[in-house]
Amino acid sequence: MSIKIKLAEKAKDVEEALRKYLIIREPKKLYEAMAHIPLAGGKRLRPVMAQLTCEMVGGDGQKAIPFAASLEVIHNFTLVHDDVMDDDDLRHGVAACHTVFGLPTAILAGDSLFAYAFEMIVESKVDDNIKAELVRHTAYTVRRIAEGQQMDINFEEEETVDPKLYLEMIRLKTSILFGSAAYGGALIGGKEIKEANELRQMAIWVGLGFQIWDDYLDATAPAEILGKPSGSDIRQGKRTLLVIEALNRANSEEREKLINILDDKNNTEEDVRMAVEIMSNCGALENCHKQALGYLNGAQKTIMKYPESEARKLLEELLQYMVTRGH
Amino acid sequence: MSIKIKLAEKAKDVEEALRKYLIIREPKKLYEAMAHIPLAGGKRLRPVMAQLTCEMVGGDGQKAIPFAASLEVIHNFTLVHDDVMDDDDLRHGVAACHTVFGLPTAILAGDSLFAYAFEMIVESKVDDNIKAELVRHTAYTVRRIAEGQQMDINFEEEETVDPKLYLEMIRLKTSILFGSAAYGGALIGGKEIKEANELRQMAIWVGLGFQIWDDYLDATAPAEILGKPSGSDIRQGKRTLLVIEALNRANSEEREKLINILDDKNNTEEDVRMAVEIMSNCGALENCHKQALGYLNGAQKTIMKYPESEARKLLEELLQYMVTRGH
Repeated sequence: MSIKIKLAEKAKDVEEALRKYLIIREPKKLYEAMAHIPLAGGKRLRPVMAQLTCEMVGGDGQKAIPFAASLEVIHNFTLVHDDVMDDDDLRHGVAACHTVFGLPTAILAGDSLFAYAFEMIVESKVDDNIKAELVRHTAYTVRRIAEGQQMDINFEEEETVDPKLYLEMIRLKTSILFGSAAYGGALIGGKEIKEANELRQMAIWVGLGFQIWDDYLDATAPAEILGKPSGSDIRQGKRTLLVIEALNRANSEEREKLINILDDKNNTEEDVRMAVEIMSNCGALENCHKQALGYLNGAQKTIMKYPESEARKLLEELLQYMVTRGH
Repeated sequence: MSIKIKLAEKAKDVEEALRKYLIIREPKKLYEAMAHIPLAGGKRLRPVMAQLTCEMVGGDGQKAIPFAASLEVIHNFTLVHDDVMDDDDLRHGVAACHTVFGLPTAILAGDSLFAYAFEMIVESKVDDNIKAELVRHTAYTVRRIAEGQQMDINFEEEETVDPKLYLEMIRLKTSILFGSAAYGGALIGGKEIKEANELRQMAIWVGLGFQIWDDYLDATAPAEILGKPSGSDIRQGKRTLLVIEALNRANSEEREKLINILDDKNNTEEDVRMAVEIMSNCGALENCHKQALGYLNGAQKTIMKYPESEARKLLEELLQYMVTRGH
């Protein structure tokens, strides 16, 4: 069975919970807007991470369902608001929430999803002290995600970005929610905060690897694997970690060439190929690959401390998938 | 001592808590945007309602401070997002958050304030089961507030609105957060859910009275009392409950006149005076006044069941102020 099918199998309970939570009520337009993106698909990586961590530490994965669902809802609330902020029209292959329902309802739908996530967390069948900690940690995480998004907005106004700051931005914007999944899963599974924090770090590492691998893949994988044209980050002129590394490492001539390609909106196949060659020549591509695998390795070491189990095995596959998919 | 000074005195601890929570950190732009509207002023009616209810039922008002501050933060998060949705430029006498910081940061600042509110709630020095209930109830309330806001958006596209539906919209959009203040205050003060719910209803009534009184005042009070030109709702063509009642009650000729005045953006003093006269002649103005006082009366009856105390006395004054201010 492929890892994708195994993940979909594992996500079934969360999928069902999401469909139950996101039924359409009055006022219909609001609830339709709330359900639009979460029910348009997605691999449910965060919920599965929460469930598997819970089970790996010896807990009952069923107890983690409301919390796992809440993470997916939070992830989707950030997507809905991000699309408003960036005025992006497409998400998960469907029209963005604000494109269909208008800006006011999209903002409201994001807010309501966020509120709903906390209703879900306190429905968990765990002790009240665990509920309180799950709420505190999740709220803190969302505030930190917003910090990451603000850093990203700030970077857009800057000529060059320090790779360390950029990495911190990715950590906040995309990795720490994976961290929360593992943290909460461990707490629900009966572990103390110290151990839950180690597992949080494991998931943050894999989240970083996931994001960096995304940059790497976009530059190196063929279109059939990406499901979109290869090099689309380059075509859009996106300042990914890969690009920032390349701009730091390339000599002034190649640097200028790369900037010209990134800033040109009418790039040819040949331009994209040349940009990848520059990234490769200066060592940025290799460094990116190494960094992603380094994070994966750190995460793998952490979970190998746990006794072998079905859950650990699937978690191993999940980590592997997140960081080496498409290659 | 005037009620305004007494309220400011009572709000001091919450004011201090807000200033502590809303210190500026990195990324500065985000935290400045978060602090902008909450620290621009406001009477802190919701926090004071929470504290006074807690004290009236025999609890320690200090224990209610983090929860009380969280309500003010939630109220402000909804203001920041509402201003984005309505593209309003002014709030509490200062430029709206999105006007100063741009739309993306304003959306993020609202999201972060909302997240922060939950961090505050779980900092309350109460048992974990109370924390969990405060979180559940608050999250549920925010989802319901969004429903009210969506109803308001829907009404804008409709010719006529059923007054009962309009009242339900006000209840959700502005009253239930007062309800949460009293509900949470009562729980923190040691009361059971049943009694807390009675006090929630008390505060919802006064919240309804507060809003309806606002409509009434705008049509009847002189500019010196309002701090803005009298009849500004009429000038803006706002469909308040007062207007909806008048459109339902007036004869067809007066109804048409009223609609013309509401839809005309260049009204004279004389037009506004005539609109008020129509509202008065058909009985809408009197009905509005009666409704507001009826809600106040219901709320007063509930708190009179409690033994006399400093807190009950100030709560009585707060209710009176909320519904009969300016007359």
